[in-house]
Amino acid sequence: MTDSSTALHPAHACLIVHGQDKPGIIAALSAMVTRVGGNIVAFDQYSDDPTGGAYFCRVVFHRPNFAVDRPAIEAEIAETLADFDLQWSLTDQSVPKRMAILSSKQDHCLLDLLWRHRRGDLPVSVPMVVSNHTTSAEDVRSFNVPFFHVPSTPGPDKSASEAEILKLLVGNVDFVVLARYMQILSSDFLEKLGVPVINIHHSFLPAFIGAEPYKKAKQRGVKLIGATSHYVTTDLDEGPIIEQDTIRVTHADTVAELARRGADVERQVLSRAVLWHAEDRVIRHGNHTIVF
Amino acid sequence: MTDSSTALHPAHACLIVHGQDKPGIIAALSAMVTRVGGNIVAFDQYSDDPTGGAYFCRVVFHRPNFAVDRPAIEAEIAETLADFDLQWSLTDQSVPKRMAILSSKQDHCLLDLLWRHRRGDLPVSVPMVVSNHTTSAEDVRSFNVPFFHVPSTPGPDKSASEAEILKLLVGNVDFVVLARYMQILSSDFLEKLGVPVINIHHSFLPAFIGAEPYKKAKQRGVKLIGATSHYVTTDLDEGPIIEQDTIRVTHADTVAELARRGADVERQVLSRAVLWHAEDRVIRHGNHTIVF
Amino acid sequence: MTDSSTALHPAHACLIVHGQDKPGIIAALSAMVTRVGGNIVAFDQYSDDPTGGAYFCRVVFHRPNFAVDRPAIEAEIAETLADFDLQWSLTDQSVPKRMAILSSKQDHCLLDLLWRHRRGDLPVSVPMVVSNHTTSAEDVRSFNVPFFHVPSTPGPDKSASEAEILKLLVGNVDFVVLARYMQILSSDFLEKLGVPVINIHHSFLPAFIGAEPYKKAKQRGVKLIGATSHYVTTDLDEGPIIEQDTIRVTHADTVAELARRGADVERQVLSRAVLWHAEDRVIRHGNHTIVF
Amino acid sequence: MTDSSTALHPAHACLIVHGQDKPGIIAALSAMVTRVGGNIVAFDQYSDDPTGGAYFCRVVFHRPNFAVDRPAIEAEIAETLADFDLQWSLTDQSVPKRMAILSSKQDHCLLDLLWRHRRGDLPVSVPMVVSNHTTSAEDVRSFNVPFFHVPSTPGPDKSASEAEILKLLVGNVDFVVLARYMQILSSDFLEKLGVPVINIHHSFLPAFIGAEPYKKAKQRGVKLIGATSHYVTTDLDEGPIIEQDTIRVTHADTVAELARRGADVERQVLSRAVLWHAEDRVIRHGNHTIVF
Repeated sequence: MTDSSTALHPAHACLIVHGQDKPGIIAALSAMVTRVGGNIVAFDQYSDDPTGGAYFCRVVFHRPNFAVDRPAIEAEIAETLADFDLQWSLTDQSVPKRMAILSSKQDHCLLDLLWRHRRGDLPVSVPMVVSNHTTSAEDVRSFNVPFFHVPSTPGPDKSASEAEILKLLVGNVDFVVLARYMQILSSDFLEKLGVPVINIHHSFLPAFIGAEPYKKAKQRGVKLIGATSHYVTTDLDEGPIIEQDTIRVTHADTVAELARRGADVERQVLSRAVLWHAEDRVIRHGNHTIVF
Repeated sequence: MTDSSTALHPAHACLIVHGQDKPGIIAALSAMVTRVGGNIVAFDQYSDDPTGGAYFCRVVFHRPNFAVDRPAIEAEIAETLADFDLQWSLTDQSVPKRMAILSSKQDHCLLDLLWRHRRGDLPVSVPMVVSNHTTSAEDVRSFNVPFFHVPSTPGPDKSASEAEILKLLVGNVDFVVLARYMQILSSDFLEKLGVPVINIHHSFLPAFIGAEPYKKAKQRGVKLIGATSHYVTTDLDEGPIIEQDTIRVTHADTVAELARRGADVERQVLSRAVLWHAEDRVIRHGNHTIVF
Repeated sequence: MTDSSTALHPAHACLIVHGQDKPGIIAALSAMVTRVGGNIVAFDQYSDDPTGGAYFCRVVFHRPNFAVDRPAIEAEIAETLADFDLQWSLTDQSVPKRMAILSSKQDHCLLDLLWRHRRGDLPVSVPMVVSNHTTSAEDVRSFNVPFFHVPSTPGPDKSASEAEILKLLVGNVDFVVLARYMQILSSDFLEKLGVPVINIHHSFLPAFIGAEPYKKAKQRGVKLIGATSHYVTTDLDEGPIIEQDTIRVTHADTVAELARRGADVERQVLSRAVLWHAEDRVIRHGNHTIVF
Repeated sequence: MTDSSTALHPAHACLIVHGQDKPGIIAALSAMVTRVGGNIVAFDQYSDDPTGGAYFCRVVFHRPNFAVDRPAIEAEIAETLADFDLQWSLTDQSVPKRMAILSSKQDHCLLDLLWRHRRGDLPVSVPMVVSNHTTSAEDVRSFNVPFFHVPSTPGPDKSASEAEILKLLVGNVDFVVLARYMQILSSDFLEKLGVPVINIHHSFLPAFIGAEPYKKAKQRGVKLIGATSHYVTTDLDEGPIIEQDTIRVTHADTVAELARRGADVERQVLSRAVLWHAEDRVIRHGNHTIVF
């Protein structure tokens, strides 16, 4: 397990707040930060309807000795927000989120994340890569990251292999990235896992939902192909979208060439989604995301 | 009716050839051009499988007195291609294609096409704009283009208004552009019209097929919106795609803002598709296009 | 003179604050808005160094009867900010900024702005277009916008024509857009004018500074061309950049085709810069802009 | 040394022709291919002025036993082109070009090329990586690629280290890629090397020529940053451009963040330029490139 240090911020806290919009939230939040001795470094907010819609806010503040005084600060936040109908969460931006990666044979997204992490561009730690194939074992370990092989249970019932993966993940990771992991996860697995799961889908969703999107794209004769990174929900390919992008293709590109070009978009889109999630920039709201 | 002159090429011919691939087509075509006294200016070709797939070729050649000697040149082409299983068509690039525009209330695509045409950027003539609303009449006529108002027949049966539009179009135009025309055309209309019809759909097809794509895009929480220009077939939103593009949006964009930003993409995408069609760069093949 | 109404917001105020960063600004500002009976609709801020750099903030708040109570609100702002080293300005978002356009023969940027304005997409009024050519007179007037012709004084000394333009503009406009206006404005003119001037330069600045950028781009063999919208300063092509964009070109594009494709980028880039300026989203800081 | 096989084409030849345009070239070339028993797979051509400008053509043809019969085919080409004022070169598309990579400490471009090569996406072999630092040695060797360390000679005279690099390269490689190699190569070195050298510059050339382009970009306040891949000539940053791209940045991005985002564009741009060069798609012409 290696830690990225350059992207982490000592003595910085990130407060995420969302719920019912109401006048006075910004004033209450900013006064609270001042009261606890913090200095606001970043402040983003959004209301989907200023006259009583849903409110979303992300405040990053610098506070010496944050880790030590965290309980007192949390008490202050709770008291401040008692008058509002808001949920909140507080994270320590000096502590990397623990990210597990699930992969299969295709390694472009996997290696891209590991390379960015080693370079110090992702504020996460990587306690493990789990794969249903062994092809990437040596590469993963060359990054000083543990590699675990869990073959997929043959047949439709994946509960045995899912149970084995859960034993590895639960308690050890803060979120999971499916880096072109070619197995569908059951809702039972997602529930037991209990942490966010980020997927990369190799199409511009909702176009070409399901299997073989590049083949479908070729059949439809599109002039652009895309990739979508989204949170995984029990509805396949229907989770909240975090990031998307497209690139231009032509009639002359074969399905294999679409896949080759698409791999570049997938890498870019997934890495942005992971970075934003790791920095607490993404708030889920129904089937949407707010990305600050 | 005004003619664009700068984008037209005197004494230039465009030969489009497509059909069964077979060795020797390029040699036969290029030798034929030399034989008829032409000089090749542009030569593009594509085979979807060099060992016996479909072949597509576009040759533009300069030939003094092309218009006068056209029958002899066509005879030469027919003889040259007799040994191949190929369809061909020849166009005179000094003659603008006659383009009719059908529009409704939204005028951004309509005005963009008229302005590009006046500027000399589209090698077409515009004999008429037909609309089911009168809102754009004055604008259209300020471009010296005739405007005809054909109200949509109320109810599901549009045959009366379609018949009136057909009377205006048939024989007078070489292709038709639906510039955000909000009526679905019947297969009977398309058959009687007998010329290509180009549509602009306000989404990245096949995502958000049908009505209100920006509303659907907002509901799905996408991070990009797009536009698609395609040939109209009897299958709604399923015709061969000519051009597509996307732009970035955020959670903060309302449906109205998506529509406002989308209008820019629609204008760009439609104008490129129209230009390429007017220059004989687009070949239809099943549900696809080859764009040279 | 026509007014865009859909993009205007009744009873909304926009407060721009910038200067020396110091803890407590957000708390002070948001408490002040609550105190004067306002409800914050948008809140953006940026500090180029949270430990004592420059601070920038844009607050939009809804306040019934803002126009009537504005003096009292301004007094409250002044008192609130007395303890900080900050400049501020307050604008009424129900009042359109008065935008004059200066143009020459090329009309693509001019018509695009007028069309967007008529459509209700720009929260401005357009009291006049001034041109050193008469070619666009009829078009401009068809938008119900006054057109004034001021021929350029021959020779290097432009003071006579500049004086005539100043007589038209001063007191009547809040900002000026150079929509491919092909005359260089003297520093004396800019000083006497006293309002911001936005230009569109047909290259990706700082590449291809000066005249004939598309010709220079062709000579250098670039694979992308671009456009830059910036505030005009006395240093030609060196003013603070508001927006830029690029598009792909190939070896086959002639200088004329670069100019034709470039016109599309210019229109897009200028219209975004104008929209953002009109919405008070752009703050100048030295040779930079902060765009919220 | 590992070879990429999937991107190579057995029994395929690529003929590049360029020189004075003249009627009849396509006919002569295509008849010649038929005569030698070849089947044209791709045919691209461009003339910068059909009435006597420069002509460029790339023909890929399939010819069983090409390698064996190559001398006879070359004789046929020479005879065919004897009547034209044209240069030509013929390459065997089943033989990978030998690509050496020169790198320094930054490894993102280096690793991206090695990974694409291993994946089979680049039709090259990689006989060696040469670096003036040892930091990437282990990574490079994990790709089964030899790594040679040649420290830069201290002081302005680099002839000693250049001589050592030349000893490694000359005769062993077909082209060289500077993957963020932070040393300027002398014209003497380039002359003795005698093969094309491809560089990646971390700006949209000609903007921000020279050292520290991201710092300069930040100072100028640009809204996009870019990367440029070009052939190296004795004029620093002035060689023929092969590929460029840009991405959007904001006022909030620090120089370090510009560099981090820029790394993504650099990787993409360099890998496209290398692929196109390896596939003989790029023809140099003065200070330009034609990219088919």
